[in-house]
Amino acid sequence: MKNTFGQSVAVTLFGESHGAEIGAVLDGIAPGVAVDEKDIAAKLAQRRPTGNISTARRETDAFRIVSGIFNGYTTGTPICILIPNGDTRSSDYEATRALARPSHADYIAYCKYHGFEDYRGGGHFSGRLTAALVAAGAIVRSALKEKGVRIGTHVARCAGIDDRAFGEIEGDLDFLETAEFAALDKAQGEKMKAAIAAAAADGDSVGGILESVVTGIPAGVGEPWFDSVESLLSHALFSIPAVKGVSFGDGFALADLRGSEANDPFRMENGGVCTATNRSGGINGGITNGMPLRISVAVRPTPTIAKEQDTVDFLRKKEAKIATRGRHDPAIVHRARAVQDAMIALTIADLLAMRYGTDFLSGKGES
Amino acid sequence: MKNTFGQSVAVTLFGESHGAEIGAVLDGIAPGVAVDEKDIAAKLAQRRPTGNISTARRETDAFRIVSGIFNGYTTGTPICILIPNGDTRSSDYEATRALARPSHADYIAYCKYHGFEDYRGGGHFSGRLTAALVAAGAIVRSALKEKGVRIGTHVARCAGIDDRAFGEIEGDLDFLETAEFAALDKAQGEKMKAAIAAAAADGDSVGGILESVVTGIPAGVGEPWFDSVESLLSHALFSIPAVKGVSFGDGFALADLRGSEANDPFRMENGGVCTATNRSGGINGGITNGMPLRISVAVRPTPTIAKEQDTVDFLRKKEAKIATRGRHDPAIVHRARAVQDAMIALTIADLLAMRYGTDFLSGKGES
Amino acid sequence: MKNTFGQSVAVTLFGESHGAEIGAVLDGIAPGVAVDEKDIAAKLAQRRPTGNISTARRETDAFRIVSGIFNGYTTGTPICILIPNGDTRSSDYEATRALARPSHADYIAYCKYHGFEDYRGGGHFSGRLTAALVAAGAIVRSALKEKGVRIGTHVARCAGIDDRAFGEIEGDLDFLETAEFAALDKAQGEKMKAAIAAAAADGDSVGGILESVVTGIPAGVGEPWFDSVESLLSHALFSIPAVKGVSFGDGFALADLRGSEANDPFRMENGGVCTATNRSGGINGGITNGMPLRISVAVRPTPTIAKEQDTVDFLRKKEAKIATRGRHDPAIVHRARAVQDAMIALTIADLLAMRYGTDFLSGKGES
Amino acid sequence: MKNTFGQSVAVTLFGESHGAEIGAVLDGIAPGVAVDEKDIAAKLAQRRPTGNISTARRETDAFRIVSGIFNGYTTGTPICILIPNGDTRSSDYEATRALARPSHADYIAYCKYHGFEDYRGGGHFSGRLTAALVAAGAIVRSALKEKGVRIGTHVARCAGIDDRAFGEIEGDLDFLETAEFAALDKAQGEKMKAAIAAAAADGDSVGGILESVVTGIPAGVGEPWFDSVESLLSHALFSIPAVKGVSFGDGFALADLRGSEANDPFRMENGGVCTATNRSGGINGGITNGMPLRISVAVRPTPTIAKEQDTVDFLRKKEAKIATRGRHDPAIVHRARAVQDAMIALTIADLLAMRYGTDFLSGKGES
Repeated sequence: MKNTFGQSVAVTLFGESHGAEIGAVLDGIAPGVAVDEKDIAAKLAQRRPTGNISTARRETDAFRIVSGIFNGYTTGTPICILIPNGDTRSSDYEATRALARPSHADYIAYCKYHGFEDYRGGGHFSGRLTAALVAAGAIVRSALKEKGVRIGTHVARCAGIDDRAFGEIEGDLDFLETAEFAALDKAQGEKMKAAIAAAAADGDSVGGILESVVTGIPAGVGEPWFDSVESLLSHALFSIPAVKGVSFGDGFALADLRGSEANDPFRMENGGVCTATNRSGGINGGITNGMPLRISVAVRPTPTIAKEQDTVDFLRKKEAKIATRGRHDPAIVHRARAVQDAMIALTIADLLAMRYGTDFLSGKGES
Repeated sequence: MKNTFGQSVAVTLFGESHGAEIGAVLDGIAPGVAVDEKDIAAKLAQRRPTGNISTARRETDAFRIVSGIFNGYTTGTPICILIPNGDTRSSDYEATRALARPSHADYIAYCKYHGFEDYRGGGHFSGRLTAALVAAGAIVRSALKEKGVRIGTHVARCAGIDDRAFGEIEGDLDFLETAEFAALDKAQGEKMKAAIAAAAADGDSVGGILESVVTGIPAGVGEPWFDSVESLLSHALFSIPAVKGVSFGDGFALADLRGSEANDPFRMENGGVCTATNRSGGINGGITNGMPLRISVAVRPTPTIAKEQDTVDFLRKKEAKIATRGRHDPAIVHRARAVQDAMIALTIADLLAMRYGTDFLSGKGES
Repeated sequence: MKNTFGQSVAVTLFGESHGAEIGAVLDGIAPGVAVDEKDIAAKLAQRRPTGNISTARRETDAFRIVSGIFNGYTTGTPICILIPNGDTRSSDYEATRALARPSHADYIAYCKYHGFEDYRGGGHFSGRLTAALVAAGAIVRSALKEKGVRIGTHVARCAGIDDRAFGEIEGDLDFLETAEFAALDKAQGEKMKAAIAAAAADGDSVGGILESVVTGIPAGVGEPWFDSVESLLSHALFSIPAVKGVSFGDGFALADLRGSEANDPFRMENGGVCTATNRSGGINGGITNGMPLRISVAVRPTPTIAKEQDTVDFLRKKEAKIATRGRHDPAIVHRARAVQDAMIALTIADLLAMRYGTDFLSGKGES
Repeated sequence: MKNTFGQSVAVTLFGESHGAEIGAVLDGIAPGVAVDEKDIAAKLAQRRPTGNISTARRETDAFRIVSGIFNGYTTGTPICILIPNGDTRSSDYEATRALARPSHADYIAYCKYHGFEDYRGGGHFSGRLTAALVAAGAIVRSALKEKGVRIGTHVARCAGIDDRAFGEIEGDLDFLETAEFAALDKAQGEKMKAAIAAAAADGDSVGGILESVVTGIPAGVGEPWFDSVESLLSHALFSIPAVKGVSFGDGFALADLRGSEANDPFRMENGGVCTATNRSGGINGGITNGMPLRISVAVRPTPTIAKEQDTVDFLRKKEAKIATRGRHDPAIVHRARAVQDAMIALTIADLLAMRYGTDFLSGKGES
């Protein structure tokens, strides 16, 4: 089901970097969910390149909803969102068509599609397509918020510089809602931006780690084995280009602890069960335990760089050098946080719809 | 599709820790694959608890193939494998039924199943069920080996002790095929075992990191977005109990590199395209590039420990102490390697069957 | 997903006619559903061959539930049911292995499985496997009944002899619950049985039409296009061996009517909307309208007959004659009604769980 | 997976009758398939209303391919096709919004979507959306033809008037390729058209039966149980609005035959196995046997008619009369044949891709 993800709530993705439009079809959203195009625009703005820390390609991301919304509310039928591609310069890529950018998709696209792939600007592999995911995710995210489920992502680390950890979560989520650069500690955020700009000046790129929290999910969501919350979220998150690691709670650090240190003791609070710590990231046995989800994602440095690298010309089967001209991002980690919010929102909505039924998001019940 | 995973090759899992049998149904395997029960037994032996570094529960894992094999070959129809549960002591668990083991599934099972769950020995959440996955995976793994695809997993780290990295891969894979304890460096392996035994003596547990390689997969397998090789493998691996992190290639370490350091330069070798380094772990743009896959998995320390911990009695809604009697593992990372091999084998077989058709594993073609 | 059907409620089927056991895994059933093994046995009895109108193969259908039931209730985790194969005579089939029974699966099994298929007694294609579906369906059917959803199937036609139409539905459903031969009109049923016996005496076989009704499904279940109630039910029903036609409401007869004759006028009854007639069979636009579902299924005459027929020896590639010895059914339509009940129950349960959530069947809600 | 159908080859449908566009995303088509927009236009023309036997709504069906085609060939990535809605008169429907058209989707849409549905012109339930399926199917159909698989559908019966049966199949398929009205017997076709016009003059509508054949599919495609060719095709065909019955081979007529009459004797022809008759419609045991597929589909008379009918106002909960003004079809059976061709093409392509791999349609192999 290659370009479709989800069971009860599902998204289908299409488009190429230099086609007329990219887009997504969002299916399974309950009828009666209010959709505010400003919310979608706001999330797209968080993903959009800005300043000297992003590609010079400028897109207005003027999306258009083709179906599934009527009088401002979801109808319950598929929502198709189209985003035109504006600022494309296809000629940038023609000359270097067979020069595989190291660690990029050029070569594997050729292996998979036998030369029929649209190679301009990364084609279907382009990070450009994540704009459609962000737009679809924004609709879901607003709906989840109405039901008390909040999602936020910060740049926990970039170019070796750490943001502070999440503190008072609801306040941090408020901040992230409107933050232009998603560092909770402003000073550290400025250092990150400087490091990105420095890499750009060197014709190079940097990576980082994105950390998300999700609050408001009841205990008992998810399945024991193959549909564990971790399985589904990681499936969704590894779909994002440049993601090379996903972990939950304290993740890889848990491997070095003893059980007595790693376990989250239970305690009672206001008559309900909760845990004193949250090293498990809100998930035990693959199922939510009522605590906030904590998710970490490793984003590799952008593979497309101006520096000269060794490569091959895969059509002529010979070694070559590449120094990519054209416009590219010295980092995508700060832009990818909007994509991460979106993929988490889509996955959580699917899990909730599977458990509580297709009308869950709108609160319309059986009655 | 809760307890079923895979598209063209799929596995369905069932059973509880203290039921008569656990088992799995393996569907979509090509007809004509030779099945040697000794191979299955050998993989089950790698997972089976041994010595003072594992639970005292002893299982013979005397499996029985109910269907799908005829005259020593797969028929192409579903293979049901049953493994009887022998050494169960249900009374161990009755008394502590509502005392939630911290970071274990007891509490979330109650939230999800409203008290109808089989709580004896972890019920359907028990690691015991991974024996069925190992048996199913063993069949697939042998079939993949016939087609030149090899899979091996070592304990890269345990209780803070590092194994050496993979060196000459085919030799390391040969070693792992029969190794009782999956450390490539024997001396480091002994230190790990000592650390596990020390934790056991303290009534505590330890975790670790498992690293796998997969060789022999052609370039061009996988899909750009939601069916990326990373998405499908992580989905499978996070299904394994106690896994809290999954990464590919250099994983989280990539986040700290610059693009020029993280990229794998292409070069020609024997007329074919390959990369000089393999920091991407054999996957670009979600699709295999012909280099070995490299996969790292973080395994938390076993949550069930003898040490006293704070918890709650979730039926009586009050705080309590727990110090688990009964038999449990001071570490599962060394046993989990057989499960990891199995889940990787199942996922890779599915990817290959999707790409090359249902007869791929047996080499029977359209003719 | 070859041998698995369903999304939220799913069944996986395995086994061969002459293997040790056949079985099914039923997944996604809500926790807390009471399971009475007598209900399962009763449905298996309806499918079991009897008298001179069925095969001489006698099976006790002594099923065994391996998992997913605890203290008489479903746990919410997969239910594996095993049914041993007792009365097998494999030697009956060895001699005729390559003599393809006309309109049976022998030849296509060879084409698909390249000779590795278990050919004894039809192997994985055998109607024997429907016993496992009946057992799984019986659990679901009882659960649906608790929620007010009832399912019943009668032999509407057999060997050209018509049963009467459904009359007072609830009474007819009560009758079918315990009827040994599912004809609503006893006299017509006797004629059918005589016709089956006559065909048997001629070394021949007969077919028929099964008609089902389902009551108690609320309006608004199903999806507009690919997950229409008709799509999902027909998918399930065409899985039953020997089924060659499926229709809803007045089915093919609607093709000859004018719209003004075929439409079901709406009217009010007890404050609710219903229709004056039910030619649409309770489904409009792919979605339930609150009226009883009406489903018709054409069952071909059993292909295995004693009469001599022209065929080929597909291994030796030459023409031949076949006159099947061994035990076979002169009709399966009367036995298939239990299978039809089961497949409908599984599909309806899945539709309801998708719409109302995974706890729907047990009535445990979000609370 | 509500609005998505298929596994390896999948289609996702979106749009409403009176939205800006309807469309479909076609995923999983092999790279390198030549796409001629004229072929798509030709199939859309076969579905388009014409003359006095169709609705007065006139659409140019000026489709636009947004993605997945590059330089005239498929890229292997999702193909999004958009078709603008031109000739909409939304005001036609506003007044009668709560007057449920008998046997139409108005009432069930309200039950399912709680009043948030786009009710203009049938909204998402409109037959208008089948244009997008026809366009997607046309691409697949051309690709199948290149591989020797041909599909054709005729109006076997309309308003009680029979077309002749298929004769010399390849010739009949040639004829249907370009026929404006799909009756093999021209005189009978004229009678059908007259009957449709007569119904229209009465403010009424008629139905019919569509029969398809598919040639060129090798033996051994499909699966024994839930993914039987019959299961998948019927799933696809019941997705088409107004379809109330689906059968294979001689279908319901088989129910009245004896086995000796219904069976298709095997024989040798040019060294290959075939059958002397084809009453099974090319499918045994759910799997193709190498003979042409034969599929019959019952299409009900269009429910929207001008004649006055009894109905209810479902918002005001009271009985009412309805006599639909606006534009509607006195029959859709002759237009639906293009949709049937499309759904069959999509399903067959999926089956072939599952069996032979994702590159099957383009003939690019593993090599």
